[in-house]
Amino acid sequence: MDIVVLRLGHRPERDKRVTTHVGLVGRSLGAKGMLLASEDQGIERSMKKVTMQWGGDFCIKTGVNWREELKRWKQDGGKVCHLTMYGENIQDVIGVIRAEAKKENARLMVVVGAEKVPYEVFEAADWNVAVGNQPHSEIAALALFLDQLQEGKELKAVFEHAELQIVPKRRGKEVLVTRKE
Amino acid sequence: MDIVVLRLGHRPERDKRVTTHVGLVGRSLGAKGMLLASEDQGIERSMKKVTMQWGGDFCIKTGVNWREELKRWKQDGGKVCHLTMYGENIQDVIGVIRAEAKKENARLMVVVGAEKVPYEVFEAADWNVAVGNQPHSEIAALALFLDQLQEGKELKAVFEHAELQIVPKRRGKEVLVTRKE
Repeated sequence: MDIVVLRLGHRPERDKRVTTHVGLVGRSLGAKGMLLASEDQGIERSMKKVTMQWGGDFCIKTGVNWREELKRWKQDGGKVCHLTMYGENIQDVIGVIRAEAKKENARLMVVVGAEKVPYEVFEAADWNVAVGNQPHSEIAALALFLDQLQEGKELKAVFEHAELQIVPKRRGKEVLVTRKE
Repeated sequence: MDIVVLRLGHRPERDKRVTTHVGLVGRSLGAKGMLLASEDQGIERSMKKVTMQWGGDFCIKTGVNWREELKRWKQDGGKVCHLTMYGENIQDVIGVIRAEAKKENARLMVVVGAEKVPYEVFEAADWNVAVGNQPHSEIAALALFLDQLQEGKELKAVFEHAELQIVPKRRGKEVLVTRKE
């Protein structure tokens, strides 16, 4: 299954850190890439640097037209899941989404907004999913959704071509450094 | 089990939004409160407002001396879990932590740092836990940890004395409003 994160409502002047967290969570928990509905070269650079150092092939594209991207995604047979505190409880729908995700060539776009999300996103989504119906964090919602979708398998994924790799330890820090040729 | 979040390294000028997300995640996923190792009345106010509107009894205390809090917590028999990408993989240790959390009067402090965490935190912690050994987000790490600790039960928790309550929906938004007397 291919997973892509679509981040809406990013305002470069105030959302830089939160959107960077969204990108890091997407990358570390198994998404292939993130589309950002605003231009932001700072985030592009920092995500590319993380990927170069820590491996994998996460890609990022900023300044996309999200209406076009959503439309094309659906035309190509992809599914769309919008994370929102107003949606159905994840525990009631994750089974259906998992089943869909296991089909051949399955493609899932996960939409996470900032404060206000246009109503047409609720309409375009195959599922509007609430990770708990309380105000919390789109970063946390994305993390819990990706974890439950993949049933924890993503937490032990190996990232290829990494320059830096952590050796898990009970105390302290150990990082393996591999020079790229 | 009582869970408290200790947030280290918060700098009011740049971490306001990220630390607010940490607080919201703590509240929505079953922690009793958050201790913040810096003074920040803005965050105190916004967390209190969320709790007043959305219910529950989450408490927040800023400007704490974290060394003292950690020491007292351990003296009183509480356990400490530090979330860090350098730690042991959550899947290898969550079973032990869950067993500990099920004991009578169990109390668990979950420490989440910003960028650099002093080495004495690694030493003071009963467990240094990595939610994936990749750079990601302390918000996501806290969410996944609390979810796995409580095995998803927290996602359907009911918050008492709420003025606002979401009615989960497949599409759109529905909020029940209860006036407090």
